[in-house]
Amino acid sequence: MALNDFIAEIAQSTEDCLQQILPQPHGQEARLIEAVRYSIFAGGKRLRPALFMATLKAFSKGLEAPEKDYLPFAAALEMIHTYSLIHDDLPAMDNDDLRRGRLTCHKAFDEATAILAGDALLTQAFAAMMSLKKIVSPQRLLDATEEVALFAGLSGMVAGQMIDIAFTGLQVGENELRYMAQQKTSALFNASILSAAHLAGANQLEHKCLRSYSDCLGLSFQIADDILDVTGVQEKLGKPIGSDTKNFKSTFVSLVGKEEARKWAWRAAESSMLALAPLGERAALLLQFPLLMFRRDH
Amino acid sequence: MALNDFIAEIAQSTEDCLQQILPQPHGQEARLIEAVRYSIFAGGKRLRPALFMATLKAFSKGLEAPEKDYLPFAAALEMIHTYSLIHDDLPAMDNDDLRRGRLTCHKAFDEATAILAGDALLTQAFAAMMSLKKIVSPQRLLDATEEVALFAGLSGMVAGQMIDIAFTGLQVGENELRYMAQQKTSALFNASILSAAHLAGANQLEHKCLRSYSDCLGLSFQIADDILDVTGVQEKLGKPIGSDTKNFKSTFVSLVGKEEARKWAWRAAESSMLALAPLGERAALLLQFPLLMFRRDH
Repeated sequence: MALNDFIAEIAQSTEDCLQQILPQPHGQEARLIEAVRYSIFAGGKRLRPALFMATLKAFSKGLEAPEKDYLPFAAALEMIHTYSLIHDDLPAMDNDDLRRGRLTCHKAFDEATAILAGDALLTQAFAAMMSLKKIVSPQRLLDATEEVALFAGLSGMVAGQMIDIAFTGLQVGENELRYMAQQKTSALFNASILSAAHLAGANQLEHKCLRSYSDCLGLSFQIADDILDVTGVQEKLGKPIGSDTKNFKSTFVSLVGKEEARKWAWRAAESSMLALAPLGERAALLLQFPLLMFRRDH
Repeated sequence: MALNDFIAEIAQSTEDCLQQILPQPHGQEARLIEAVRYSIFAGGKRLRPALFMATLKAFSKGLEAPEKDYLPFAAALEMIHTYSLIHDDLPAMDNDDLRRGRLTCHKAFDEATAILAGDALLTQAFAAMMSLKKIVSPQRLLDATEEVALFAGLSGMVAGQMIDIAFTGLQVGENELRYMAQQKTSALFNASILSAAHLAGANQLEHKCLRSYSDCLGLSFQIADDILDVTGVQEKLGKPIGSDTKNFKSTFVSLVGKEEARKWAWRAAESSMLALAPLGERAALLLQFPLLMFRRDH
């Protein structure tokens, strides 16, 4: 299957699943639910659900239920991603006005509502994961959920955002940028891919391959992101170009320039593909992600 | 056992457990970890861990491991409570400078760090819950965790804070205030008490009693809180007196005055105790909470 078709299909089914999971606005908290829905139904690429479902597909022999039954977990990963975007966009953080082509949550609503919408999405994500308890082995679900909590938290994605802020205004070196990419970007890729590996009962060697695939994929994605910030087209990206420079962010482009950065992104994409070799043909779909991310224009 | 001694004991062991769970400041994200530790080691009453452990004690026959092995779950509840305080104190929300007798997290650090410290605590709480997977039945742990996620999220505690904001500047009626207390305060009591009931394998009738105990306990606690805001002593409370009035908050005191509110708090405390009747002697410790909360001066 071509990756673009697969991603489009997963985006649609994740969307449908989110529609089922999230309530319609009601009661005194209607505004909160509206803000949650505004942010999550903004047409994101749903890349993390796609990575999760593609990993399930690679290990489909180990699944305990039809693939579609795992969608609430995929939706949970998208909820965590969206919460992190809402909080990162806040005035106290990156202070961004546009996201996915429209006003950021705190601009469309207000800061308090945006903070709470993020909190609600993060909490609800864990409820969505728990809803799989009727269809998969409880032990696998606990392992998968723990993996997500660890990669998304204090030693993962949240740390990544703190590091991003700490580096603002400085030009840090290669090691620091790699560490930041690992926490800020690879961590949630790891959460998406390795939680699927747990749910599908992958073995230790397979976990190791996927971990290394995911680390490199995240790095490649982050470098491509840095490049897009200087070469992208605002209409496609859905956010202003040049915001890294404007915000004095330390990026791979500011470190080595966009041509050299492009080479680095390619090398990381290559390493990512190489890491899949031991998985053989099963990895056919996963193998296409690095190329797609390297070539992306938004 | 006298409740005060029990609470002091649990506060100490929760503290010890949190020390083990949370990392020491390190790396580029040191500031984030410092903020997390600053907020959680500020000498709170650890009431939610105490409710959780007291419920375990009431159903000790159903436990699968020694009581102390459940402490990471108790610590997780305190982490969720602390995250909610950090976010509620933010300038965009209640804009409070003092909490537990010292500067709020965003005053001691900055807004971005405070938002991230809250996010990290919430995420890490779920990792802490998952760490019980080695000692309890996986199915019970999934049920307990789902309960926490549901009561803490979009239809629980986070909704409560949104409602609090929506009601600011209005004088709402009794039903609205009760609904707000349910979401803002009872929800996390429910999470603490009912997750313990799941972990101890309580039956449906017992769940029903505990739910009604917890709803009333939360209401009584919230009314007492509203009263303390006008009659308390700043040194004991650790935060300024009169902040509800200053912030145009709709409270039980602003609705019916403090004398009448005291009667309501007492009636809720009574209902809370009555709800425990079917549990008999096992509920001895739980039975003491309503009185303690009604009489509290901080």
